[in-house]
Amino acid sequence: MPAAPPSSEETFGALLFPHRHLLGIAGLGPHEILFLLDEAEQWIALNRGAAKHDNRLAGLTQINAFFENSTRTLLSFEIAGKRLGMDVVNMHAATSSVKKGETLIDTAITLNAMRPDVIVIRHEASGAVQLIADKVDCPVLNAGDGRHEHPTQALLDALTIRRRKGRVAGLTIAICGDVLHSRVARSNILALGTLGADVRVVGPPTLLPPQVERMGVTAFTDFDAGLEGADVVMMLRLQRERMAGGFVPSEREYHALYGLTPERLARAAPDALVMHPGPMNRGIEIASSVADDLNRSAIPEQVEMGVAMRMACLDVLTRARRGVAGW
Amino acid sequence: MPAAPPSSEETFGALLFPHRHLLGIAGLGPHEILFLLDEAEQWIALNRGAAKHDNRLAGLTQINAFFENSTRTLLSFEIAGKRLGMDVVNMHAATSSVKKGETLIDTAITLNAMRPDVIVIRHEASGAVQLIADKVDCPVLNAGDGRHEHPTQALLDALTIRRRKGRVAGLTIAICGDVLHSRVARSNILALGTLGADVRVVGPPTLLPPQVERMGVTAFTDFDAGLEGADVVMMLRLQRERMAGGFVPSEREYHALYGLTPERLARAAPDALVMHPGPMNRGIEIASSVADDLNRSAIPEQVEMGVAMRMACLDVLTRARRGVAGW
Amino acid sequence: MPAAPPSSEETFGALLFPHRHLLGIAGLGPHEILFLLDEAEQWIALNRGAAKHDNRLAGLTQINAFFENSTRTLLSFEIAGKRLGMDVVNMHAATSSVKKGETLIDTAITLNAMRPDVIVIRHEASGAVQLIADKVDCPVLNAGDGRHEHPTQALLDALTIRRRKGRVAGLTIAICGDVLHSRVARSNILALGTLGADVRVVGPPTLLPPQVERMGVTAFTDFDAGLEGADVVMMLRLQRERMAGGFVPSEREYHALYGLTPERLARAAPDALVMHPGPMNRGIEIASSVADDLNRSAIPEQVEMGVAMRMACLDVLTRARRGVAGW
Repeated sequence: MPAAPPSSEETFGALLFPHRHLLGIAGLGPHEILFLLDEAEQWIALNRGAAKHDNRLAGLTQINAFFENSTRTLLSFEIAGKRLGMDVVNMHAATSSVKKGETLIDTAITLNAMRPDVIVIRHEASGAVQLIADKVDCPVLNAGDGRHEHPTQALLDALTIRRRKGRVAGLTIAICGDVLHSRVARSNILALGTLGADVRVVGPPTLLPPQVERMGVTAFTDFDAGLEGADVVMMLRLQRERMAGGFVPSEREYHALYGLTPERLARAAPDALVMHPGPMNRGIEIASSVADDLNRSAIPEQVEMGVAMRMACLDVLTRARRGVAGW
Repeated sequence: MPAAPPSSEETFGALLFPHRHLLGIAGLGPHEILFLLDEAEQWIALNRGAAKHDNRLAGLTQINAFFENSTRTLLSFEIAGKRLGMDVVNMHAATSSVKKGETLIDTAITLNAMRPDVIVIRHEASGAVQLIADKVDCPVLNAGDGRHEHPTQALLDALTIRRRKGRVAGLTIAICGDVLHSRVARSNILALGTLGADVRVVGPPTLLPPQVERMGVTAFTDFDAGLEGADVVMMLRLQRERMAGGFVPSEREYHALYGLTPERLARAAPDALVMHPGPMNRGIEIASSVADDLNRSAIPEQVEMGVAMRMACLDVLTRARRGVAGW
Repeated sequence: MPAAPPSSEETFGALLFPHRHLLGIAGLGPHEILFLLDEAEQWIALNRGAAKHDNRLAGLTQINAFFENSTRTLLSFEIAGKRLGMDVVNMHAATSSVKKGETLIDTAITLNAMRPDVIVIRHEASGAVQLIADKVDCPVLNAGDGRHEHPTQALLDALTIRRRKGRVAGLTIAICGDVLHSRVARSNILALGTLGADVRVVGPPTLLPPQVERMGVTAFTDFDAGLEGADVVMMLRLQRERMAGGFVPSEREYHALYGLTPERLARAAPDALVMHPGPMNRGIEIASSVADDLNRSAIPEQVEMGVAMRMACLDVLTRARRGVAGW
């Protein structure tokens, strides 16, 4: 496999992103996040062209080990890897040795012995991805672990905001809904805060983490107040199981108090951007008329940025093992 | 990706098949159907050779979104796409966001944002494929939707008949069994009728659609009468759930009245071809001795034609976006 | 697809391995087994390099038909096929026509009609793989059938032993645990015996096959006696369902009598190698301290050898249809 031609940037590659894994946003500096965002731009262009394939990672093997189901994230990573020419295989939890009582560490050892070049992991337990990363020889990408982190989601969200607003720094961004249980919220608070945004979290008191202000955000339990003047309104998915859990009185009441309607959106900045990581509960956390207004909503664009962002991460994380100059 | 060399046929390509999607046989003219059949011939030859791979569609992404399980159809489309060099990914309903309450339109918008070049869809609801096609930027191939259509099955059946009988026009073709619930029957009635065959439908009164004659076919409730002189006998799968539904008294009685046995087949033309879309219920709608008589049965050949036919459809539908001259 | 350059070995290829399928170890001579082991060495080297991909089998189609779930074996075969450049598709039993009542032979006929170049099959019934092999035109690889055989597991075990011990012939190898229900044990007894090892089987009387000595092994029901001086200790997985079946009194008692602990391992040769086909039940058939001692345990290496061994089998079995000189 020929190494990519050297450039001044690549000469210092390992300085630009000196991390072996991408387990979370925590620990990344603003320049590292911006570097990944910059890298994604080329893949947006490729994916919009006729031949959306680049053999840069040909010869490498990517294992997607999803212990928790997720159509869109798995598809996104699978498409990303295949478009870069990798041999991509999926390990589905439903058919896995895990069901036979194998420990997570034994699964990690087994996957590692097949000599993959990158492992993408999603797991319902916070920290499980770190546990696996400690046991393998190749880069690990966290595709969501418990309530901990979902770093590529935060990166694709930052990329979407930067493309639509021209910047992230200085924007007022309201993250709204079930902040307590959301790894998307957590990774976004870290990423957007690191990039200099003024981050607010908005939700019912039962769905905000205690002392969330320690993460550098302002907390609101009144949705209207939290939206006031926001440049970006990022809605979170309300997990249906929260309904039964006593966190939320009813879907109807949740929508009345914390659903994003056109009237409510009018409180935000006039050109406020609406985002949602999907899948949406229309009529619960977001009204269809808001979701479908493509002048305001960046929801499909978030999905598109997701593939490009993951291609960038797969490319960057495998540079050292591919012998790219400077890495 | 280099475009295929131009030819006189390709110069007028878009006139030969001026459709963006393949949602059904309805709306296709005889020349369009014959064009697809002609295109499939090259892929039959490729698939029978040593290196059954052509990179014509390299760089493109195919998403198979199967909301309804189907081993053989999914395998057939997956093999077809991979043999043409595409990056192929499968979305399984069992692990999909659909289970989380996402609407079908949101799923369509999500898939579309990943910028596929073709989406193959199977769905248990009639019309669902059309709904998705309306929301995406790329060609959509219907791999079966509810009781509506299954166009590639009808095309592969027509291809099989044409190869074994030399033509479709003028043949007497009996489609036998659960016509009422069958999208295979519906697409075949349309395709074979358009190609000039004399189509009969044969089945118990409870399993024939009301006023089926309006589709241009002759209806028979007496199996022996319906088989009389037929050139092709196309058996349909009896869905096991019909047994419980009151449509059919018992498997044994169904076999006695509507099962294809050697004795009954003798009523058809001496060289009548036997077909079945699979999977077969041996001993119910078809006797094993008939299914396994390869002088009469084209059942394995139908499967083979399926891969070639789907390669042709994938190739033709993606020509415009690949910039093939004339498309 | 260009054929590999001819060599003197390939000129006589078909003499070196004159088998169309790999259904079991039974029927293979020592030179044939050693030939496959030798072939695997090149793939170990490839898999340890940066670009772990060889297009030798490009243009071919591999179908993995797994009627019985198995993460690690499926992943291993899928990675093996993809690294060799094949178009690889998986047929999962859970979504298969088999659930609709299709017979195994009809499934075989259907798969065959799609013109694969190799079919890898795992099935819960002994002999099912042979049944399918009889109905198809391409090589069939047995990935485990019932209690019958699991030949690639035995080959990868032999490869692991040969690399760690320098040879197989003359070694004393103890296969320990549920020998009665284990296709891994059966294939290993055949392979290691054929290669000249002195094979022992060790287990509770209820889990040893009657008259197992007829397979050329020595049987022990006392674990300590069976381990005495062994060069290799191969532990078998205790299927959890055996607990309920009356074969074993309790997990704790099983571990006490037949679990491999450091104390017990001291009875074996000082440098005895510990093996396990995985997934392990830590604390039942094997103590964690033994499993994790990489000076003794070859367990991760077995997984690595698995991918290489399967690449060798896929390569060798498809040589005839690829027109490799001498095959």
